[in-house]
Amino acid sequence: MAASDILRQLLADVRDGNISVDAAMRALDGGEYVDIGHAKVDTGRVVRTGAPEIIYGEGKHPEEVADIAKVMLSHGANVLVTRASAAVHEALLPVDHRAVFNARARTVSIVQRPVPAPPTYIAIVTGGTSDLPVAEEARETACFLGNTVKMVPDAGVAGIHRLLGAVDTIRGARVVIAVAGMEGALASVVGGLVDKPVIAVPTSVGYGASFGGLAALLAMLNSCAAGVGVVNIDNGFGAGYLASMINRLGLY
Amino acid sequence: MAASDILRQLLADVRDGNISVDAAMRALDGGEYVDIGHAKVDTGRVVRTGAPEIIYGEGKHPEEVADIAKVMLSHGANVLVTRASAAVHEALLPVDHRAVFNARARTVSIVQRPVPAPPTYIAIVTGGTSDLPVAEEARETACFLGNTVKMVPDAGVAGIHRLLGAVDTIRGARVVIAVAGMEGALASVVGGLVDKPVIAVPTSVGYGASFGGLAALLAMLNSCAAGVGVVNIDNGFGAGYLASMINRLGLY
Amino acid sequence: MAASDILRQLLADVRDGNISVDAAMRALDGGEYVDIGHAKVDTGRVVRTGAPEIIYGEGKHPEEVADIAKVMLSHGANVLVTRASAAVHEALLPVDHRAVFNARARTVSIVQRPVPAPPTYIAIVTGGTSDLPVAEEARETACFLGNTVKMVPDAGVAGIHRLLGAVDTIRGARVVIAVAGMEGALASVVGGLVDKPVIAVPTSVGYGASFGGLAALLAMLNSCAAGVGVVNIDNGFGAGYLASMINRLGLY
Amino acid sequence: MAASDILRQLLADVRDGNISVDAAMRALDGGEYVDIGHAKVDTGRVVRTGAPEIIYGEGKHPEEVADIAKVMLSHGANVLVTRASAAVHEALLPVDHRAVFNARARTVSIVQRPVPAPPTYIAIVTGGTSDLPVAEEARETACFLGNTVKMVPDAGVAGIHRLLGAVDTIRGARVVIAVAGMEGALASVVGGLVDKPVIAVPTSVGYGASFGGLAALLAMLNSCAAGVGVVNIDNGFGAGYLASMINRLGLY
Amino acid sequence: MAASDILRQLLADVRDGNISVDAAMRALDGGEYVDIGHAKVDTGRVVRTGAPEIIYGEGKHPEEVADIAKVMLSHGANVLVTRASAAVHEALLPVDHRAVFNARARTVSIVQRPVPAPPTYIAIVTGGTSDLPVAEEARETACFLGNTVKMVPDAGVAGIHRLLGAVDTIRGARVVIAVAGMEGALASVVGGLVDKPVIAVPTSVGYGASFGGLAALLAMLNSCAAGVGVVNIDNGFGAGYLASMINRLGLY
Amino acid sequence: MAASDILRQLLADVRDGNISVDAAMRALDGGEYVDIGHAKVDTGRVVRTGAPEIIYGEGKHPEEVADIAKVMLSHGANVLVTRASAAVHEALLPVDHRAVFNARARTVSIVQRPVPAPPTYIAIVTGGTSDLPVAEEARETACFLGNTVKMVPDAGVAGIHRLLGAVDTIRGARVVIAVAGMEGALASVVGGLVDKPVIAVPTSVGYGASFGGLAALLAMLNSCAAGVGVVNIDNGFGAGYLASMINRLGLY
Amino acid sequence: MAASDILRQLLADVRDGNISVDAAMRALDGGEYVDIGHAKVDTGRVVRTGAPEIIYGEGKHPEEVADIAKVMLSHGANVLVTRASAAVHEALLPVDHRAVFNARARTVSIVQRPVPAPPTYIAIVTGGTSDLPVAEEARETACFLGNTVKMVPDAGVAGIHRLLGAVDTIRGARVVIAVAGMEGALASVVGGLVDKPVIAVPTSVGYGASFGGLAALLAMLNSCAAGVGVVNIDNGFGAGYLASMINRLGLY
Amino acid sequence: MAASDILRQLLADVRDGNISVDAAMRALDGGEYVDIGHAKVDTGRVVRTGAPEIIYGEGKHPEEVADIAKVMLSHGANVLVTRASAAVHEALLPVDHRAVFNARARTVSIVQRPVPAPPTYIAIVTGGTSDLPVAEEARETACFLGNTVKMVPDAGVAGIHRLLGAVDTIRGARVVIAVAGMEGALASVVGGLVDKPVIAVPTSVGYGASFGGLAALLAMLNSCAAGVGVVNIDNGFGAGYLASMINRLGLY
Repeated sequence: MAASDILRQLLADVRDGNISVDAAMRALDGGEYVDIGHAKVDTGRVVRTGAPEIIYGEGKHPEEVADIAKVMLSHGANVLVTRASAAVHEALLPVDHRAVFNARARTVSIVQRPVPAPPTYIAIVTGGTSDLPVAEEARETACFLGNTVKMVPDAGVAGIHRLLGAVDTIRGARVVIAVAGMEGALASVVGGLVDKPVIAVPTSVGYGASFGGLAALLAMLNSCAAGVGVVNIDNGFGAGYLASMINRLGLY
Repeated sequence: MAASDILRQLLADVRDGNISVDAAMRALDGGEYVDIGHAKVDTGRVVRTGAPEIIYGEGKHPEEVADIAKVMLSHGANVLVTRASAAVHEALLPVDHRAVFNARARTVSIVQRPVPAPPTYIAIVTGGTSDLPVAEEARETACFLGNTVKMVPDAGVAGIHRLLGAVDTIRGARVVIAVAGMEGALASVVGGLVDKPVIAVPTSVGYGASFGGLAALLAMLNSCAAGVGVVNIDNGFGAGYLASMINRLGLY
Repeated sequence: MAASDILRQLLADVRDGNISVDAAMRALDGGEYVDIGHAKVDTGRVVRTGAPEIIYGEGKHPEEVADIAKVMLSHGANVLVTRASAAVHEALLPVDHRAVFNARARTVSIVQRPVPAPPTYIAIVTGGTSDLPVAEEARETACFLGNTVKMVPDAGVAGIHRLLGAVDTIRGARVVIAVAGMEGALASVVGGLVDKPVIAVPTSVGYGASFGGLAALLAMLNSCAAGVGVVNIDNGFGAGYLASMINRLGLY
Repeated sequence: MAASDILRQLLADVRDGNISVDAAMRALDGGEYVDIGHAKVDTGRVVRTGAPEIIYGEGKHPEEVADIAKVMLSHGANVLVTRASAAVHEALLPVDHRAVFNARARTVSIVQRPVPAPPTYIAIVTGGTSDLPVAEEARETACFLGNTVKMVPDAGVAGIHRLLGAVDTIRGARVVIAVAGMEGALASVVGGLVDKPVIAVPTSVGYGASFGGLAALLAMLNSCAAGVGVVNIDNGFGAGYLASMINRLGLY
Repeated sequence: MAASDILRQLLADVRDGNISVDAAMRALDGGEYVDIGHAKVDTGRVVRTGAPEIIYGEGKHPEEVADIAKVMLSHGANVLVTRASAAVHEALLPVDHRAVFNARARTVSIVQRPVPAPPTYIAIVTGGTSDLPVAEEARETACFLGNTVKMVPDAGVAGIHRLLGAVDTIRGARVVIAVAGMEGALASVVGGLVDKPVIAVPTSVGYGASFGGLAALLAMLNSCAAGVGVVNIDNGFGAGYLASMINRLGLY
Repeated sequence: MAASDILRQLLADVRDGNISVDAAMRALDGGEYVDIGHAKVDTGRVVRTGAPEIIYGEGKHPEEVADIAKVMLSHGANVLVTRASAAVHEALLPVDHRAVFNARARTVSIVQRPVPAPPTYIAIVTGGTSDLPVAEEARETACFLGNTVKMVPDAGVAGIHRLLGAVDTIRGARVVIAVAGMEGALASVVGGLVDKPVIAVPTSVGYGASFGGLAALLAMLNSCAAGVGVVNIDNGFGAGYLASMINRLGLY
Repeated sequence: MAASDILRQLLADVRDGNISVDAAMRALDGGEYVDIGHAKVDTGRVVRTGAPEIIYGEGKHPEEVADIAKVMLSHGANVLVTRASAAVHEALLPVDHRAVFNARARTVSIVQRPVPAPPTYIAIVTGGTSDLPVAEEARETACFLGNTVKMVPDAGVAGIHRLLGAVDTIRGARVVIAVAGMEGALASVVGGLVDKPVIAVPTSVGYGASFGGLAALLAMLNSCAAGVGVVNIDNGFGAGYLASMINRLGLY
Repeated sequence: MAASDILRQLLADVRDGNISVDAAMRALDGGEYVDIGHAKVDTGRVVRTGAPEIIYGEGKHPEEVADIAKVMLSHGANVLVTRASAAVHEALLPVDHRAVFNARARTVSIVQRPVPAPPTYIAIVTGGTSDLPVAEEARETACFLGNTVKMVPDAGVAGIHRLLGAVDTIRGARVVIAVAGMEGALASVVGGLVDKPVIAVPTSVGYGASFGGLAALLAMLNSCAAGVGVVNIDNGFGAGYLASMINRLGLY
């Protein structure tokens, strides 16, 4: 059932007296949430956007993360925490012993209902080994959301043959994620090689005039290859999420 | 036939003596081009990326554009010129009388082989009327590449009901383009409303601390909604191109 | 009647069958608008925010402005156009002969229902004569919205006695607008002198390292005096609008 | 008694021989202060601006804070320290046992004369849970200055229904503070929903291209909604102070 | 004779009474100049740095350029003017009828003593046709200083095969100049392909977040390929000059 | 009579009944001004700061400049207008036929009382001929304020011998102004050569990564030589004014 | 003996055979130095610029500082180390027991020959108590170089009467140093109050959009008051040095 | 054998059946690599670019570095690790006991086949002692690649005679590296003194408005001296690598 149908149903329910005006005002747009004091947990999100809950762990106390996870799990959702420390993992294990920690990606995931993946896959290309943590976050996110992922690590443009050697894997994907720091040229070269959407992730790998990833970000935004969309610096999660949306198009 | 197959074929042709090593070296990766002095026209591009030729008109003399268009047309490609002036249109009319000028979008298109569109559509949402030229460039590009487009103009977040009023059109699309200047909040609000890929286009509309679109660009990159990919400031073409790629996935 | 009451009424109307679900979906949040093709004119705005319509003229064709103005006038609203050229004035005179052009402020106003002003007033202090266009835009906006304004021009901090000489006028106001370019120190000094809200407007007056008003903007954001809120560079309109909101508090 | 009256009185006192020229020169503008070596404590501030003393704790030694507090308390003022550590609290407890520490807001307050609040209230809306420390600083400041505050936490625009669900609380306020990091879109959406002054506080919550809050700051300055004034990044104090000024207008 | 020998000779001449102390003080470092009021023409430059005079034309009146050229020509030097308009050409023709204007490169050259070129050559690779003016300035400069140049135009990384097709020309050079705007990835890819010094020239070609060439500049400075030196944005002259120095090493 | 004496006298006059409290409030700090509507002309400035009036011409109508000049001249002051066009000169000639226009410096001066210069002088060193307009503005300002100036044009650091050749002139000055664009190295080299205060003026001469003078500005602020103070980009006036203050120390 | 005389003498010595060409080449410009491996200690500096040696301690090992100090002391110079830690003090005490550490200013000084001060003095005004470390560095530097200094701490513009109360001290100085962070308005207000050179020192005091002192820096560079020269952020040393040069003018 | 010959050979081998198409696709461009999971070690690099392997140590675990080194050593290459910690040295010693750690340069090198140096040399000039770590990295890199290096430390432009005293060493080099922080003027002065290529390395030495080396970087890019190429901030490695390429030209 599409989200707009939900909204229409809500108004029909008001018309028909099935729900009160007060409830409708609280739940406008089909969105329901559970208020746990420090956060409004968006339990209507699965209905509204089709996605399980993903928690941004940075700046949250491990117990706060656990509180949110508990509510989500009790509503039947899988849970992924990004920017998670080992302490978050420890706080989540008592909540659900299936909690898995990926230290490089800095993610904790709890999967109670595995999501089936479509036959197509997502390729993740990285410029250098230092870009791997961001690529891993993208991979974890995409897998969590129900996708097959193939990695093409360490394929920076300074050794273009490494990239060309993996061209079949890259071209076989339905959508490609290009992860690179420094000058971020990878996005342009990949974009020129494939006829598929490319999601570019600048990373903060570099020093000096990389200005924390700004150089790669600007380069990717100015890519001379068409078909490239850019996400925030080091935002592996965002790239994995968007790639999943594209890879799963037609499945919903 | 996929592009990697072409490469493999090329090497097989070399092995089998069908083409010379010199020719293979010139055409490595299946890419062929015609050298017309001031430019290398990429006639292999349709094969390689599945896309007809699109010419960036800025900084090119109208006659240079015409020269490139002639080569492309003679290879059977449709032609789209972006950032085109009326002078470019005048230079292209003698080349092909079907040349059409869209003054607001600043595009000239010549379609000799219409591209059939898939049943799904692209929605383009704009923040204000000043964002329309960029939105038009996106629309022209997407239509040229074979897509149905629905426009949702003037739906800025300061009057959120205008956006909510168009929510069915937005949610019905396979991919959404959000075009906005000033604070660029549109991308986040749209991203929160739909479960589809959102391509965000910051525009240079605004003044003062918008710094030529930087404010909207940063806002879109930092969108608190997941599923948003960003293209360059005022890059309607890039958004239309990427949206087409996504909308046509499965058709190739 | 407050805006939230309108929303509640809307839902009640749906419940009671007074309006259809379709109409409610189009008018969610009490917001109604007239679609004139290139723009959605927000005729529900007076109800929703208590403010008459104000049109941002930059980048709009004079006829487009006139089209919007016609719709608004026919709904009983007064009209103010900011960033307006003389051409806009000429396009509006046939629509309503009461259209008045302020060349320095770059505004055109059409008042069919004068708005009564409260007994309190707004003071507008400017650093130098070059800041006057921005100050004038603030004054025009505030007057249009129903306020008395007192101007304190050319009171920059390099001659602190000029500012001190006007201290009674400044302190007598209910809210003060400080307009300054260059180093923008005026906001801090004014903020230290009064116990009233200060709205700081950085202007692009200056050269070199003023970077188009950035220096004044940063200075005002970092004001060592408390009670200062900042608007965009050269945004006289925004300052006048916010000052009006504050000056008229208690009147709604 | 207004501040300008004090100045006039000062000059009259000089004329009448009530105070010496030397004293007048030291106290020009009615401002008196106590010099304690490392700081000039502004004991005349209550008279001059109507506000009790607020101490910015960053970079001051706890004992310096205590010295300043002692002088203020002995002049009858309440004391609020912002950006305060637990060490500051410990240094202040011997000075006055009523000292209260709010660890999240990083404030210490000592109230010897409670300030009565007007019947209207201030609403503080925050985008996410990570923005709470800044929102808390705003709340502590506003309460300290004599205001009722209602919090609307975790109402970011990516889940617009959460914000719409709280629309009555927001619209019922006399002035609204919108606290958000990342893309800072909250200010625009809130500004479009209410007809009251909105004070926008960008926070440094985010990463990568948020550049320490710059993205949110620029977005808020470029808000397409009118009636928005912006304070410095993470400046919860400044927002609370300005909101108090506006909420208490008419009470002085 | 090396420049340091000249200095040593100067001091020896002072010792031996061949020149006066005053003359030595005016000519310290072997540098002599002719003062023509608005400029000190550096007639000692050929001796000191081995290079003929090159005049930066921007912001100079055509007559001023002519004045400087006259002095240089009378000292036997060839003259190259960069950033020259047609008006400069017209002012120089009466001075020397051999003056040649390259409108695309914006150079005027007067060669009275052709400089013999070494057998090696400089390759200039450009990303797109819009980068040609900068590449032409580099070519004019290098040729003027006595070098053979081979151009590889329109070899941007989005069509990597065009670049690979020219790989022999690029690798055959003694030094390579890579000229590119937008994302500037060309420098990295070229740097990865060759074992020769690469001089990267970012151009201001692009729009939006290219920020006048900043994106390409940062990308080139952060090149993941080693062996890349960067010059200023659009500085074709500087690249040609440095390439000439490298190409001619061993000839002095 | 020092300015503080004036203030003390003012208060004494109030005490003694010589002037009214109202007058004292208008003239606080000895500052008197004439209000001519669009500007408050600071007629008390000569008394207060010892300097004749200098009018910043940018953004002022020629007639406004003339109005201000008239008031100043009638109070006996000399007048200097900076950033003046020929139109300003034409508007001032009827006011006073002694008005002199310096087109390169963009100044108009009217001297009715020549100011005697001290025996010491100011040296102004410039990097290149393109920096001359800024240097000329500094020279005009310094001469207007009563100083002898010696120019050392075209002494950029790329030909260090030109600078060394003028070292006596530079070291003989009481204060040195260094004017340079591009990389702004002149300030450091000059600062290392002399034991006198150096005022550094970055200019906007340059292109690309000079970012309108930012490169020179940052270089000068980071000078490794001590004794360097920096003024705004292209601010020849400010440098001349500050140099005059230093050169005339001991004369007041 | 002036430095240029030394140069002339050097050349005369070469002429007369008093020193060899080699020695002259090493000592060109009268500058002598002692090479201690990791540094070239500038023992000719006193002669050349009239100033004792000042060592920038940041990034130097305490023993390296001690090595440099030893050489300087043995040449009769006083020594001042800025940005010095307690460890530097400990390393210098064995070298000379007179070494004094100022922890707030982060300086260590060793005075073997006190420098007599002129009768005039330098005033140092600071915005807030957090600016004191920078002001102290300025004070230490100025005193070390032989100057009397008067401090006016905590005189920020938000309480303008504190500044006005100290106006006699400020106006009595021969040169004024204004030290302020946040919005840096102090420089403009001080510059408007006095007829003496003002050296503005922006500090990194502040947060958020102060961007490490950038806001104050830009404000000071754009000061609407004339007669203000700016040094680097937090550069108390540079301000003290320049102020000393100005205060001691006429004494050399 | 030149790299392009390798490519041609590869294609010929395919034609002649010597290698399979699959192998050619993996090894396109003569580039071979060993995939060790976390990295693709570029064993074809010596053939392709003539350079031994250099490993960027930042962000890599010591064991990862050791893994890469092992593969390289077994292919006969020398190994240099930059940005290496002592822990990296410890991890490499068991791999090869010849591993040498340079703590200041932060490099570890393992040389199994010394590379003979040409008779020419590279000069490295540094502004101050704080720039030495970057200069050392350049020196280590250049020596590792087979070059003689002469150091000219502590020759900043504030004491120009120190630089002039070393002018013979500088002018005798085939290529010069100029390493400087703060205002970066050294590159311009050196560039003006020599007729050889200058590689400029901005360092992050400085504070305040040096913005981590940005000031020096911009200065060097805007050098008024021709013949200067710039590398990234603190990129001693890049400078040493490029200098080696230039110094060894003609040897390959």
